[in-house]
Amino acid sequence: MPQLNRADVKVPAGVPAEARETYIDNYLKATQGTGRLMLFACDQKIEHLNDDFYDGGDQIDLADAVPEHLFEIGDQGVIGVWAGQRGLVAAYAADYPDINYLIKVNSKTHLIKKDQDDPYSPQLHSFEAILELINNGVNVVGIGYTIYLGSEYESQMMAEAGELIAQAHAAGIIVVLWVYPRGKAVPNEKDPHLLAGAAGTALCLGADFVKVNPPAAAADATPAELLKQASNASGRCGLVCAGGSTVDAESFLTQLWEQIHIGGARGNATGRNIHQRSLDEAVRLTKAISCLTLADGSVEESLAIFNGDKDFSL
Amino acid sequence: MPQLNRADVKVPAGVPAEARETYIDNYLKATQGTGRLMLFACDQKIEHLNDDFYDGGDQIDLADAVPEHLFEIGDQGVIGVWAGQRGLVAAYAADYPDINYLIKVNSKTHLIKKDQDDPYSPQLHSFEAILELINNGVNVVGIGYTIYLGSEYESQMMAEAGELIAQAHAAGIIVVLWVYPRGKAVPNEKDPHLLAGAAGTALCLGADFVKVNPPAAAADATPAELLKQASNASGRCGLVCAGGSTVDAESFLTQLWEQIHIGGARGNATGRNIHQRSLDEAVRLTKAISCLTLADGSVEESLAIFNGDKDFSL
Amino acid sequence: MPQLNRADVKVPAGVPAEARETYIDNYLKATQGTGRLMLFACDQKIEHLNDDFYDGGDQIDLADAVPEHLFEIGDQGVIGVWAGQRGLVAAYAADYPDINYLIKVNSKTHLIKKDQDDPYSPQLHSFEAILELINNGVNVVGIGYTIYLGSEYESQMMAEAGELIAQAHAAGIIVVLWVYPRGKAVPNEKDPHLLAGAAGTALCLGADFVKVNPPAAAADATPAELLKQASNASGRCGLVCAGGSTVDAESFLTQLWEQIHIGGARGNATGRNIHQRSLDEAVRLTKAISCLTLADGSVEESLAIFNGDKDFSL
Amino acid sequence: MPQLNRADVKVPAGVPAEARETYIDNYLKATQGTGRLMLFACDQKIEHLNDDFYDGGDQIDLADAVPEHLFEIGDQGVIGVWAGQRGLVAAYAADYPDINYLIKVNSKTHLIKKDQDDPYSPQLHSFEAILELINNGVNVVGIGYTIYLGSEYESQMMAEAGELIAQAHAAGIIVVLWVYPRGKAVPNEKDPHLLAGAAGTALCLGADFVKVNPPAAAADATPAELLKQASNASGRCGLVCAGGSTVDAESFLTQLWEQIHIGGARGNATGRNIHQRSLDEAVRLTKAISCLTLADGSVEESLAIFNGDKDFSL
Amino acid sequence: MPQLNRADVKVPAGVPAEARETYIDNYLKATQGTGRLMLFACDQKIEHLNDDFYDGGDQIDLADAVPEHLFEIGDQGVIGVWAGQRGLVAAYAADYPDINYLIKVNSKTHLIKKDQDDPYSPQLHSFEAILELINNGVNVVGIGYTIYLGSEYESQMMAEAGELIAQAHAAGIIVVLWVYPRGKAVPNEKDPHLLAGAAGTALCLGADFVKVNPPAAAADATPAELLKQASNASGRCGLVCAGGSTVDAESFLTQLWEQIHIGGARGNATGRNIHQRSLDEAVRLTKAISCLTLADGSVEESLAIFNGDKDFSL
Repeated sequence: MPQLNRADVKVPAGVPAEARETYIDNYLKATQGTGRLMLFACDQKIEHLNDDFYDGGDQIDLADAVPEHLFEIGDQGVIGVWAGQRGLVAAYAADYPDINYLIKVNSKTHLIKKDQDDPYSPQLHSFEAILELINNGVNVVGIGYTIYLGSEYESQMMAEAGELIAQAHAAGIIVVLWVYPRGKAVPNEKDPHLLAGAAGTALCLGADFVKVNPPAAAADATPAELLKQASNASGRCGLVCAGGSTVDAESFLTQLWEQIHIGGARGNATGRNIHQRSLDEAVRLTKAISCLTLADGSVEESLAIFNGDKDFSL
Repeated sequence: MPQLNRADVKVPAGVPAEARETYIDNYLKATQGTGRLMLFACDQKIEHLNDDFYDGGDQIDLADAVPEHLFEIGDQGVIGVWAGQRGLVAAYAADYPDINYLIKVNSKTHLIKKDQDDPYSPQLHSFEAILELINNGVNVVGIGYTIYLGSEYESQMMAEAGELIAQAHAAGIIVVLWVYPRGKAVPNEKDPHLLAGAAGTALCLGADFVKVNPPAAAADATPAELLKQASNASGRCGLVCAGGSTVDAESFLTQLWEQIHIGGARGNATGRNIHQRSLDEAVRLTKAISCLTLADGSVEESLAIFNGDKDFSL
Repeated sequence: MPQLNRADVKVPAGVPAEARETYIDNYLKATQGTGRLMLFACDQKIEHLNDDFYDGGDQIDLADAVPEHLFEIGDQGVIGVWAGQRGLVAAYAADYPDINYLIKVNSKTHLIKKDQDDPYSPQLHSFEAILELINNGVNVVGIGYTIYLGSEYESQMMAEAGELIAQAHAAGIIVVLWVYPRGKAVPNEKDPHLLAGAAGTALCLGADFVKVNPPAAAADATPAELLKQASNASGRCGLVCAGGSTVDAESFLTQLWEQIHIGGARGNATGRNIHQRSLDEAVRLTKAISCLTLADGSVEESLAIFNGDKDFSL
Repeated sequence: MPQLNRADVKVPAGVPAEARETYIDNYLKATQGTGRLMLFACDQKIEHLNDDFYDGGDQIDLADAVPEHLFEIGDQGVIGVWAGQRGLVAAYAADYPDINYLIKVNSKTHLIKKDQDDPYSPQLHSFEAILELINNGVNVVGIGYTIYLGSEYESQMMAEAGELIAQAHAAGIIVVLWVYPRGKAVPNEKDPHLLAGAAGTALCLGADFVKVNPPAAAADATPAELLKQASNASGRCGLVCAGGSTVDAESFLTQLWEQIHIGGARGNATGRNIHQRSLDEAVRLTKAISCLTLADGSVEESLAIFNGDKDFSL
Repeated sequence: MPQLNRADVKVPAGVPAEARETYIDNYLKATQGTGRLMLFACDQKIEHLNDDFYDGGDQIDLADAVPEHLFEIGDQGVIGVWAGQRGLVAAYAADYPDINYLIKVNSKTHLIKKDQDDPYSPQLHSFEAILELINNGVNVVGIGYTIYLGSEYESQMMAEAGELIAQAHAAGIIVVLWVYPRGKAVPNEKDPHLLAGAAGTALCLGADFVKVNPPAAAADATPAELLKQASNASGRCGLVCAGGSTVDAESFLTQLWEQIHIGGARGNATGRNIHQRSLDEAVRLTKAISCLTLADGSVEESLAIFNGDKDFSL
């Protein structure tokens, strides 16, 4: 299991001396002391409205229709950070105080399609509104922000992200950027070279971690192999990646393993694949992912955890 | 009659310790100690200009031509909160000091139609302008804001709402969001799945209550049944719903009852159905609605109150 | 002659205790102790550029070519408030210290026509710039702002007006809104029902007075009769109205009288009809209007004053 | 030679008591104690890029290729104020400390032509950045700002100008507005009636001086005669005017004389006609203009100065 | 070798007395005491995404795939300033503390092409975020900003640059502007007369150095000869220039030499030509460039350094 000493945490120069220990605390909390990130994505209630949470029970467990499901998973499962909007966190955090929260600062719905307008996801509140949560005792360790690179609104999102990162680091809070190339100017969102550019952009903006979509497979290379360019380009900014829309657990865990051990990823970000299941199954999947990500578990070991043949804790 | 103890009020984490008692006070005032919201909507003088207030007496009682009518109803009737713009409240509040006011922070006219431009309703003043009213002794318990989801201006409204919620909770003030999917990207504003997304959005932004329009009836489900998806999705954010344009009191009250007892609504928001009547009739209707909403009254009991066969007070 | 006691002034709740006496002072100054407003509009040098001030002497007296003419009229005549832009007031106020000034905060030229773009009139400076004048000893009693309702820029003007009203009342300064429906979405700017909506909007924004254009005559009603809907809708916000483009003094004064005594207006706003005359004639016209407006004079009495057969002072 | 006593300076009401003497100092410095303004325009390096400074020596003296030329002229010649952007002034002011500087706050290039977009000239920095120069010892007596009246961006420029004027006067600094009607809505930029409107606009915004282009000649009136309407309309705001593109010194000086003595101008603003010459010739031209403007010299006397037959100093 | 005494540094008037020594320190650090600037451009990870850093090793050394390569070059080579975005600097500066950093404040990707929209490069964070780095001990000597002159967004970039310059100088920090004419209104980005306008614009905004692209060769003049107009126009603002896309070292160094000794450049700005090589080769190239730029070395001497036949240090 990878272990990161306090002294080994690379503290960005935007963190002042008085926030240095806080930053290290937050970094170690978020990565469970490993330098790797297991991010449980819970921001889809705005991003996808209710599409990810209710289909009458066909593919989505009915437990997911109720928002508290997300917190129960975070509380009973094993995760690094629980990422969602400030208002959602604020409504439930008092009852789930031990979760490591990452406030997703911007969000948009998917109602406006690409042919109507390029995507812009607005900052939903000031940074001070996040500090308020922390001052009120919420266990916020990080913030997140999505940039749509190549959108006609790229400049607004770059500027909001850049300033938020400065503010967060000044307070010792870590930052994860979601960077997705998207818009009329982007014909291929999953081009590995473009994804490497996205990863490098996050580094230059000062993010601690960057989430990108996995590259599409090429004739002569697997997605994990192609991801290597991006994980190189992101340098000290840890690259995390989603497993895509796979639902079969074994394939999914295999992908995550390859992203880390072949693609150079430093973790993963998973949402629907976790929360669309019953509480019990979802909890087991968080443990399987965390075993693989945080404890360098094998696919087999993780699968055994998911199947309930084995337990996992940190 | 539902009763909510102070200890049972779920205080959002955005409320600091020093504002906690204020928040509980405001929450209990707004819901008359029940956790349910009866909202008397009085913001139409901008939203609909004079259309809702004067038609020469054909459908609208001539009493409604004069703005003070709205305050007289709020004063003599039984309501939870009286929702209107800051300027309107400021002009009359000194003479109607006991009403629980909810300041509707944004508003637009209906002059520009959807085919000319997507809707944007601007924040009319800073949050400080609301605190000023409170400091001057006005009984403001909450604020309201309308978001048109799917509008090309969605991002502006999401950002204004998000920040206002942070500011309001920091001061112990409750927030109601009106969330209406509307714009070129929204073909069906009353789709129950979309309304559930709207409700979840309000939760993620941190609203205490969300007002949505009732779903359209489907082949195999009533509006109230279809509303259940939205009331689930809104979680700890209480969902309130309007009875639509029905004017017949019995149908109207039946709808409200079904919204609560079948659809999972935690109250209702009613405007025109109340104020377009004579003062006496309007007052009786507020009591009927409040009996049904706040005291778990039956449709029959509420109708008797509306018909003047019975009185109601809290 | 209508008389308003200090105790009868309806102080909006946005006025804090420490500014209450100032507000009452300003309200009584502006209305000359009557609750009625005689507003001398002097903002046309931007709004209409030089069109209202110089035509070679054909219809416009040559005295009007020089800006000081406006101040001489305000100084020697009898008016309620003198309304013009901050810069104009600042340039001459030291020499005309007794005039009650109302700072018209926004202005635009008429160079861009409706078919090129919808109207937007920008706020020309911060509210602090007005307080600066007051601190420097200028007798500013109020501010004014124009909203073009139904313009594609309605939202900007509504927001600027809403915030300015909060700021003005916090300092004990009264506010007059000019509300004109205008833009591609407005086919009939003088529809009485729409004007009532405009009046109600001003009330909801918190204005003390609203200036609207007089309604067009209908088949079965005079403009003054049609104005009644608007004066009802504006409630505690006093409605004032211009006499239109009539130049003949008797018709003009008759219109003003009817607006007040039939239409429910609480005053009038007059510009060109006053200042396009020689100083002597202009001064007499202000006295005629003020007699009619502030002292409940008859048309005959006012006409006699205009004709120099009688003097008038407060 | 016109002489203005300190007591005769009309101090705008936006100037507070503590800045009153500073304002009078600046006004007298800028006008060399005369109330008339000789403005040496040095802002073309952005406005016209290098077009005014280098043509290989055909019409423009090669001395003009180097920016310091502008300061040498200002230093050795006789001028009222030297008008240029903050950065340019900041780079050389330490070596030319005696020049009266006027900071031109906004500027744009001419690369985008009228048929691509209407003109907008942005404020280049905050007002505080100007105060910083003054605090650092630079002899800044005024600021300047260009408004393109009738541009689709008129509102932005009006708002920036209005606020800057309030800030400048609060600090005792004088303000010159350049007001040019320009844009798709303006078919005739040199219409005398429109120029009078431009002049009146500057007065209403609070400028101390306004620069307009000279009117085009009409069938029955010279440009200087036509300028009278504008100089009337600008009232206490002194109107200054350029001599146009004339290069022949006698015609040029004749025009300036007529603008003042027939057109009512209170000075002039000249750039290219001065700096495109060799240092010696340029210096003599500043003296000729200043003799005419500030000392009421005749055209003949001024021409003699320009020709080096006579010297001039204040 | 050019030497600049502290007393000879031309300190802009925007630098206050208390920051004067800091400014001189930074100016001398950035120019290695020479007044000439050797700028190592490391901002392409956003500007060009990963295009400049990875092509599978065809033209770009594989060492360049990893961001730390840039810092190793800066650390082991001889440069004036290392220019990159704040986030990138913040991530590595603790390990490379001796580099002179210049924070590139704005950046955009190249995804949106000119025919879709004119270029705008947004300010990525407040100036305070840069001061934070300095307060935290990072050796930041300057900031940089790119303006696309002639873009429809020119005004935004001019305004951001103007204010940043005021803020930077107030803190004693030097400023480099990248000024590139670009957009629908610019048919020829490399026109020498236009480049001179760009250089003059930077001077007027207050930059200490301006980077322009080299002019295209003309029938009768070399790029270096044509550059003279621009270096004249930029006056006290030092002009630096890139060598273009040449990769052959001798041609490249010859170009740089001619830019300085014929074109009047005061340095150069080089990125890809340096970092696309192996560390050893890149380090040698920085020394060759610095010898030529900072020590007035000949092309031959510099080439010998590049070829490893000779070493160079300051």
